[in-house]
Amino acid sequence: MNIPALNSDIEATSGASVVLTTARDAGVDVCFANPGTTEMPFVGALDTVAGMRSILGLFEGVCTGAADGYGRMAGKPAMTLLHLGPGHANGIANLHNARRARTPILNIVGDHTREHLKYDAPLTSDIESLARPVSVWYRSVARDADLATDTADAISAAMGARRGVATLVLPVDLQSAKVRGAAWPAVVRPAAVSFDAARVEQVADLLLGGHRAVLLMGARALSARGQRAAARIAAATGATCFSETFPARAERGGGLPDIDRLPYFPEPALAALAGRRVVLAGALAPVTYFGYEGIPGELARPEDIVTLAAPGDAADDALEALADRIGAAATNDDGVRVERWRVEDGPLTPQAVGRVLANALPDDAIVSIEGGTCGYPFVTASARARRHTILTNTGGAIGQGLPVALGAAVACPARRVFALQSDGSAQYTIQSLWTMARERLPIVMLIASNRRYGILQTELARSGLPADTPHASRLTLLDDPPIDWLALSRGYGVPAQRVSDTHALVQALDGALARTDGPTLVEMRLS
Amino acid sequence: MNIPALNSDIEATSGASVVLTTARDAGVDVCFANPGTTEMPFVGALDTVAGMRSILGLFEGVCTGAADGYGRMAGKPAMTLLHLGPGHANGIANLHNARRARTPILNIVGDHTREHLKYDAPLTSDIESLARPVSVWYRSVARDADLATDTADAISAAMGARRGVATLVLPVDLQSAKVRGAAWPAVVRPAAVSFDAARVEQVADLLLGGHRAVLLMGARALSARGQRAAARIAAATGATCFSETFPARAERGGGLPDIDRLPYFPEPALAALAGRRVVLAGALAPVTYFGYEGIPGELARPEDIVTLAAPGDAADDALEALADRIGAAATNDDGVRVERWRVEDGPLTPQAVGRVLANALPDDAIVSIEGGTCGYPFVTASARARRHTILTNTGGAIGQGLPVALGAAVACPARRVFALQSDGSAQYTIQSLWTMARERLPIVMLIASNRRYGILQTELARSGLPADTPHASRLTLLDDPPIDWLALSRGYGVPAQRVSDTHALVQALDGALARTDGPTLVEMRLS
Repeated sequence: MNIPALNSDIEATSGASVVLTTARDAGVDVCFANPGTTEMPFVGALDTVAGMRSILGLFEGVCTGAADGYGRMAGKPAMTLLHLGPGHANGIANLHNARRARTPILNIVGDHTREHLKYDAPLTSDIESLARPVSVWYRSVARDADLATDTADAISAAMGARRGVATLVLPVDLQSAKVRGAAWPAVVRPAAVSFDAARVEQVADLLLGGHRAVLLMGARALSARGQRAAARIAAATGATCFSETFPARAERGGGLPDIDRLPYFPEPALAALAGRRVVLAGALAPVTYFGYEGIPGELARPEDIVTLAAPGDAADDALEALADRIGAAATNDDGVRVERWRVEDGPLTPQAVGRVLANALPDDAIVSIEGGTCGYPFVTASARARRHTILTNTGGAIGQGLPVALGAAVACPARRVFALQSDGSAQYTIQSLWTMARERLPIVMLIASNRRYGILQTELARSGLPADTPHASRLTLLDDPPIDWLALSRGYGVPAQRVSDTHALVQALDGALARTDGPTLVEMRLS
Repeated sequence: MNIPALNSDIEATSGASVVLTTARDAGVDVCFANPGTTEMPFVGALDTVAGMRSILGLFEGVCTGAADGYGRMAGKPAMTLLHLGPGHANGIANLHNARRARTPILNIVGDHTREHLKYDAPLTSDIESLARPVSVWYRSVARDADLATDTADAISAAMGARRGVATLVLPVDLQSAKVRGAAWPAVVRPAAVSFDAARVEQVADLLLGGHRAVLLMGARALSARGQRAAARIAAATGATCFSETFPARAERGGGLPDIDRLPYFPEPALAALAGRRVVLAGALAPVTYFGYEGIPGELARPEDIVTLAAPGDAADDALEALADRIGAAATNDDGVRVERWRVEDGPLTPQAVGRVLANALPDDAIVSIEGGTCGYPFVTASARARRHTILTNTGGAIGQGLPVALGAAVACPARRVFALQSDGSAQYTIQSLWTMARERLPIVMLIASNRRYGILQTELARSGLPADTPHASRLTLLDDPPIDWLALSRGYGVPAQRVSDTHALVQALDGALARTDGPTLVEMRLS
């Protein structure tokens, strides 16, 4: 994130150009767009401001999910460009996930000319009410003189202490207004990231006092450095380490310690935390994903929880300081050696899929994971893989995995990106495939095709309800008609193949990795 | 809409069953669902309450759009079943359209157990803030004793004076609660529909006073009866008649008068209304769709507008009363004779598409129209067609045409349903195809494939901006890669074919109409 340079050479320009130039000079140079009529001056300005990349999505959830994936990997915002309240509404689900991931996004929403709002024309809606629940910051630009400062404020908020989605509404008349000088340039001030030394002392006292502990890690704690520091602490104190269940981003493999995710279901999660103090390092206090009768919502009692670092803190630095403070050995041998799994030829079980994929990852791969069927087995297996980054669904709004992979591939063109995706959740933002093909992004999509909402059948069983009654089965099965993933994928210009055993999957991955100028889809028919 | 019968035989049942029974007894017997974990007790209850039809959508916008199409045709609500705030968010765009169409919908959104909300688990969000902008009524059920009355109140609100989307949030613990007796059954009270005789007098005086007038018609004025009455008035007074530009539902053809839609762009719309008083019959005061510099937002001056009937009134009755009051002849010869257009063999121009489709419509067809490219030419042509109903995009949130066709086909199994759809807008809810295939709905989809957002290129030109610059062209062209509609359609289990001349389109429509057990898609490659 650069502090913007002076732009004294610009005398009069369009309002949209002011926004774009301010954003670009602050390092925001990618725009995931699905514009409409009220965004046409903004589209026109993209052709006059050098250095912006615009990427079209056929559906707004693709744009917002891509901005999430981009922001997680780039560490700075992409911008979106959405069409009034209804266009923005289509992007809300993935903005919800971005909010939970604390991903910085400059969420730009066009609006009617200010004069036109009072007529309540068909597309008029309460954008603020729709945007506030997913935004850490919201503003509708009121005057042309504010365009630069409002844009800078939005980026500062996105990169600020609360970090997340900053929604900036741009009335179309202000996009096309001729703007001179005033309040230009504007300064972006991202929040400094630090940690609280007093908390390090408090946790050190706890650990040195002999308390059994779990380090529950999120955000920067899941960097390679954070994980190595946590492993030192664990080796010195007997603490156990878990990643939060749905990390926005975690490094894994390549000799890092095997820090698995806290289990999803409450019973094993409670067992993992039982009898231990819970030290939060960049994670929130653990709660159950849903409320279940007879099970506490809090997975640890408040009096057993101590915060080393909040999600916005430098949790990696805090863990290193803690490791040093308690005199943990400077290195440890808890790293997992990179090693291929032996996978027998045979049917595609979730475990086999996880191992084959772990074997196939090249150095510095990125894996976007959505769906439980293969997601958990993969993460279990991937401790042995080459160094890679995993991105998970942070907010539970499904339809996140494919666009996040798209955005990650835009952010990191030198890294290979995989999407390990369940068939049900892939459908919500299936239009992602087209943008991947258009942008020639060499993403490898693995669709775990079991033709059902597996999690719902599990949850029905947990509730003591049958899954084979007429309505329950028709609302959880996707087999009539079966989705033809090969046809669908080709429909969007993405070559595809279907595999149903481990040998074929290995070969399909080889073939997909050999393709460097576009995406590939592999339908995995699970056994 | 029936007033619910007594259900004294039910002693204790689940909360979800109370909701379902109350709804069913009020005539709400179709549920467009995309449930998640917090809706499992509701899904379980669908298997215990007889007489409900549940229909799965792979994406929530399919469910809400289908509920809109259903409600427009059935005149009563369908229910939706959506998964917390993020699932609901995916349905907002089409609820926005339903709000503009005044379509009654019982919008059911599951939520966490009440006890769990305070933990701010990943899927927790401000559902109320997300739902209010599209809802005429919102309530989150607070107590099990309120389940029946809250459901009845929701249906009453959906069918009430404001008519529209009633959002009822059901915490999962209340869905599974055991409920006894209290406040059961509850009574649904839809609003009575009438008109204001004083307004009839006022308009009669205006017309008899020799004022030139336009009858601008919406809602019930666009019934066959309303249109015939309007034609009588026009014949007697020299008034002209227009439908509002985007009617929720209008009858057309089969000998009805040719009442075309008020033009979309402001210049021809202003010309159509110039020098005349505007009599609103079920329509809102006409405003431009967007604000344009130098063009008034109001297409008619307030002092030139007089309201005969508001959108919620019995505008058809009001028009008949007005026709009688001014002594218009009891019949008139303004009806358009049913007659085939002569269409030359040749390329698929929008005009040719409109005429071929008008020729092909069987009696009582329903045509869901989304996209301007072929939509306007079709309506122009369809005055000569057999009697049919058109449904248009009322709120401008695109991705509405396919789900509305789906819902209309569920509501009217004896009628043939067509979706005349542009390629760009079809993508937003493309998952509709799967549900059409699954439900064996014999919908004929005609995709006007010009591989561009044509309206945006038009709007760029209107703004004096080039459409062929790098960003503008990449954000408005859909040709790289071209979407393979045949593959995409087959991917969802829908047989498809591609046509590029009028003769092939005639044959494709013949073939599609011969299929009665499922949908067909025709990609029309426009010249």
